[in-house]
Amino acid sequence: MKKWDIVKSKVVHRNKYFCVVAEDFRLLSGGIGKYYIVRSADFVAIVPVEDGYIYFEKMDRYVLRKRLIELPMGGIEEGETPLAAAKRELKEEAGITAERYRKLGYLDASKGRSDQKGIVFVAEGLSFGKPQPDLIESESNLELFKVKISDIPDLIRRGKITDSHTLASLSLFMVNYKGSPKDKS
Amino acid sequence: MKKWDIVKSKVVHRNKYFCVVAEDFRLLSGGIGKYYIVRSADFVAIVPVEDGYIYFEKMDRYVLRKRLIELPMGGIEEGETPLAAAKRELKEEAGITAERYRKLGYLDASKGRSDQKGIVFVAEGLSFGKPQPDLIESESNLELFKVKISDIPDLIRRGKITDSHTLASLSLFMVNYKGSPKDKS
Repeated sequence: MKKWDIVKSKVVHRNKYFCVVAEDFRLLSGGIGKYYIVRSADFVAIVPVEDGYIYFEKMDRYVLRKRLIELPMGGIEEGETPLAAAKRELKEEAGITAERYRKLGYLDASKGRSDQKGIVFVAEGLSFGKPQPDLIESESNLELFKVKISDIPDLIRRGKITDSHTLASLSLFMVNYKGSPKDKS
Repeated sequence: MKKWDIVKSKVVHRNKYFCVVAEDFRLLSGGIGKYYIVRSADFVAIVPVEDGYIYFEKMDRYVLRKRLIELPMGGIEEGETPLAAAKRELKEEAGITAERYRKLGYLDASKGRSDQKGIVFVAEGLSFGKPQPDLIESESNLELFKVKISDIPDLIRRGKITDSHTLASLSLFMVNYKGSPKDKS
């Protein structure tokens, strides 16, 4: 792994959710390269599983002006562990508490532009209560629904799941489901 | 799908690669919400397949200071079709030309923050030549290698592929591979 030397680093934009850092760095060739990096909190994604079903959410997405199918997900708050964030998000968004959490792995959310990571958990032993959505979630007509695990490949094939962080989290889940993909072949 | 009315929209940061737009919009409750949207070009991802192998790249990622395993990917240039971008990127990055391209679907790259889309192609009938990497690709020690399709689940399970756009593209490929996942079970 190459070590690039940073020549200059400056925050050029900051808002409540992320900031943009402009960095000048030394190229192998000796010249100066420039990168614009988006820095923001890491997030968690949860795959809630019960009786051969995964629980998904449908929600209206402001940026896309489109209703998406997603796994429960959310930003990790300052001082919070990924596991605590996963428990909080699942409870707030979906009203679900889980007896068991297991970490499946992590994602680099947007490698060319950001160092944001998504930590992915599977949650099992589910109990269902009332969601406590935040303002954005209330505005998004968030709706919980379940899909049989064996029907998920077909849902993906038909283009019904387009959120890359949901697809990536599902790929981590699928290769770990029942311990080994060999069980399924 | 809810229609949010935009009250105000303003570019608050702009660089060579993306811009940040601050938008005030009307909440259901009547108040004003705020969104910061990152706008940038869409990209293509290519799954190059030959004889039961997929061709991947390893490259040093500046933002992550980490060497990642990725599918060939790159931004769509102005006036370029996704297919033309896929052909150009595969040739430039990997030195590969393909006889056949098939669109697998698309990804929403970062639904909460950006409307960027990734269009995913499978490329078959491959010929191998010399890559013509751009500056960033040269700096990244880009290296082409192949993985047997049946070994990919294990690679994912061992945490070797963390790029969410690569994982999401692979999930599109896997559910379409040989027409149906039923072929594999």
